[in-house]
Amino acid sequence: MKLSNIIKHLSYAVAFFCSTFCYSVSANADERPNIIVILADDLGYNDVGFTNSSTEIKTPRLNELAENGVTFENGYVTHPYCGPSRAGLLTGRYQARFGMENNVTYTPYDPYMGLPTEELTFAERLQKVGYKTSIFGKWHLGGAPKFQPNNQGFDYFYGFLDGGHMYMPGQVHVGSPDGYWLPIVRNSQPAEFNEYLTTALSRDAAQYIKRSGNEPFMMYLSYNAPHAPLQAPAETIKKYSHIKNKNRQIYAAMVDEMDQGIGMVVDALKEKGKYKNTLIFFLSDNGGLYPDSWWPQYDWADNAPFRHGKVALMEGGVHVPFIAHWPNKIKQGFKFDGLVSALDIAATSVALAKADASDGLLEGVNLEPYITKRKTGTPHKALFWRLEEADNIWAVRTMTGKYMQQGLPGVDRAYFDMVNDPTEQINAVDKYPQKQAELAKLWNEWNKNNKENILRQSNEYKSAVKAFYEQLNKEDNQQANARKKYHVN
Amino acid sequence: MKLSNIIKHLSYAVAFFCSTFCYSVSANADERPNIIVILADDLGYNDVGFTNSSTEIKTPRLNELAENGVTFENGYVTHPYCGPSRAGLLTGRYQARFGMENNVTYTPYDPYMGLPTEELTFAERLQKVGYKTSIFGKWHLGGAPKFQPNNQGFDYFYGFLDGGHMYMPGQVHVGSPDGYWLPIVRNSQPAEFNEYLTTALSRDAAQYIKRSGNEPFMMYLSYNAPHAPLQAPAETIKKYSHIKNKNRQIYAAMVDEMDQGIGMVVDALKEKGKYKNTLIFFLSDNGGLYPDSWWPQYDWADNAPFRHGKVALMEGGVHVPFIAHWPNKIKQGFKFDGLVSALDIAATSVALAKADASDGLLEGVNLEPYITKRKTGTPHKALFWRLEEADNIWAVRTMTGKYMQQGLPGVDRAYFDMVNDPTEQINAVDKYPQKQAELAKLWNEWNKNNKENILRQSNEYKSAVKAFYEQLNKEDNQQANARKKYHVN
Repeated sequence: MKLSNIIKHLSYAVAFFCSTFCYSVSANADERPNIIVILADDLGYNDVGFTNSSTEIKTPRLNELAENGVTFENGYVTHPYCGPSRAGLLTGRYQARFGMENNVTYTPYDPYMGLPTEELTFAERLQKVGYKTSIFGKWHLGGAPKFQPNNQGFDYFYGFLDGGHMYMPGQVHVGSPDGYWLPIVRNSQPAEFNEYLTTALSRDAAQYIKRSGNEPFMMYLSYNAPHAPLQAPAETIKKYSHIKNKNRQIYAAMVDEMDQGIGMVVDALKEKGKYKNTLIFFLSDNGGLYPDSWWPQYDWADNAPFRHGKVALMEGGVHVPFIAHWPNKIKQGFKFDGLVSALDIAATSVALAKADASDGLLEGVNLEPYITKRKTGTPHKALFWRLEEADNIWAVRTMTGKYMQQGLPGVDRAYFDMVNDPTEQINAVDKYPQKQAELAKLWNEWNKNNKENILRQSNEYKSAVKAFYEQLNKEDNQQANARKKYHVN
Repeated sequence: MKLSNIIKHLSYAVAFFCSTFCYSVSANADERPNIIVILADDLGYNDVGFTNSSTEIKTPRLNELAENGVTFENGYVTHPYCGPSRAGLLTGRYQARFGMENNVTYTPYDPYMGLPTEELTFAERLQKVGYKTSIFGKWHLGGAPKFQPNNQGFDYFYGFLDGGHMYMPGQVHVGSPDGYWLPIVRNSQPAEFNEYLTTALSRDAAQYIKRSGNEPFMMYLSYNAPHAPLQAPAETIKKYSHIKNKNRQIYAAMVDEMDQGIGMVVDALKEKGKYKNTLIFFLSDNGGLYPDSWWPQYDWADNAPFRHGKVALMEGGVHVPFIAHWPNKIKQGFKFDGLVSALDIAATSVALAKADASDGLLEGVNLEPYITKRKTGTPHKALFWRLEEADNIWAVRTMTGKYMQQGLPGVDRAYFDMVNDPTEQINAVDKYPQKQAELAKLWNEWNKNNKENILRQSNEYKSAVKAFYEQLNKEDNQQANARKKYHVN
């Protein structure tokens, strides 16, 4: 048995003990908060009201949460795109620790294509101490049964397994090879999908809250909005007809619908009397799309004041809108400028749930002391990024500086003074050799415990699968052609 | 453009002309019959009332159809198991003509794993001359979108794509790699599955009939019953508690439920006033399971008086319960002993529908003259079989003799006198060299136009897919391990 498995089994034992005894004796006095993690998909930094001085896209419900909560002004995800970012968020570990630096390709047949089951999601940790755990929306961490949410810590699943889905009711095809078209699922059963998907996910989440009992719950509301395909109800698009860019009109409507959906969830909390003791996190899984060379036509998101977007390690790719809201503990809204990571969501949740973290694997910081103002400063000394699937692409930032490498126009290897130039306008590479060396050292130390990436890119993966079937068919035909025609005597 | 494609396009043109003009001018006078093909799956020859002197399993509705219709006492399928047998039935061509001598494995990803789209199903032929075409139940001719029923001639599909399905309501799993567990589908949408599957299929077929308009329809009611898994409602199993073999109790209940379902369809025809002008065929896709060496535990079906069963080319594998029922044309039930093939269903249907068969590809015989007693004798001089995926396994029979080869206990190469020994008790190989030589010649002539099998067995296919993913993962890990750990300077 591998060490990680032993640890896993020990932690099960501890958790079983705890879930059986620790809370059953004091069920009525359970004051542990509910936790809701709302994740947007490819949302631009500047496309919500609370980060934006302009008011182009209407997000009144999110703005209200931000006003009464904590706005993390330096909130980051661990990867500039979907799958790895979600793996980091859900495990509370840098995904490079387990070699997952690429998107998972949806397939029910590949037992290697998913978040390794040896890794614990924080849903698994919370489940063991009596939390009801649920996911609504996008999974994107594996299609084979063992990788599906119900086997990775979630009691309840309403959503889809692939990295995205068509948004309009009826846009499904049971026999589709493309996960975007598969039926919406409730646990393993096909589920209703009779309205705009963002609304359907929100409605189901709100109903889940209304049905909830006395046990605390953890909810992962994983919108695919505003990820492509660009689809939104016509009447919502009309609200944004003043925007010139037609794509951005639809995109704005998608964000608007998400905000309305979040409103449904918040209203359900209020109705159920669970508003005050629910900690809500909201963030995006990465920056909005930016018309970089690899997708010049994707021009609808706005990551201002940051440069570039999804897939880039510049701020536009990893510095995301990020808030926390918890009326019981945050009496007055404020902005927080310490370095906060998506990893901290697992660490905070596990701490608040009094779940087991004795395996020492969690890499985030419990934010509770910061959001209750008992503690100031930065939760993280440094944050790290790595994209090993292409040429070496990496970044490290502290409160004062950022050192990175990525083949972007005018960037390549770069150093940015994050105090005076937080939007990365001036590449000061090699101008502060000492600071640069310190950052390099931090990164190298962090990197020591990483596993090299084992997931190939989706297009490469799909090409390999296609080539395999072609080869199989070719072999079968060759064999058929080579066979001597039988003659009956 | 290949010749077959040119033919296909020409036939489209002819059919378009015909569907547009031939019937639209005389829509009210359309006297072409509706056609229903009811296919059982792995049904034993002796497990319906109309072939059986005993009455162990109750099939009153089928018996009634047989009494008032034609019972084909020498009715055969073209293959002793599911996929190829269905390919023959639906195309009206020996499936060896297009190299399909094996079961199709369900996968939405393989664009080669299905009934070749160049082949025309007779549903496609009928669709072009104004028939409404529908399939209820098992497809088993390809999972990739281009192979699905809606793309192979069927307007309407309620059922499943794989070679079988779980029977009990709720036994589905959207993300399953196993087609037996996928949602029941209506065309491309997930569909209700709230009752015993055989009943659900029957109910939907009956409703389809009740909804039908003036156009004639062709319906393919493709039960998976009584194919494994052995599952039936408890109360129906109770009816058969006198049967000692527990497996056979369930199997009997599955046949019973199928008979009841057929009753629902017949009642719908009566209710709709379409009973008299509907030609119903009923047959099994192959013989019932027999506990041969390759599955000694499969002991629940009864192919008496014939020997062996599914997968064998002895009568037990290919000689099936087979009837036709058409009140308008068959005024009194009778038994017919000429050689009849599942291929004849397409030929008869195309002839009655006045559909296009000018490509000359259909190999069946129009049975209409025989079932209306205008013609006597045998529709086929000889019938042929071939299983090329293993060692050469073949058979040919005429009205008087059968010559075959298959590695079965005491059989191997065999000649049977079908006049005096129709149940193949005595292997008279090499005793009638002249007759044997005639049969060999017929088979060799028939075989000249066959294409060697290009579909590998499901277990081999699945092993290849598994090995591919293993190899892919191995390569990715090797590449990861070989990668030099990056050092930031």
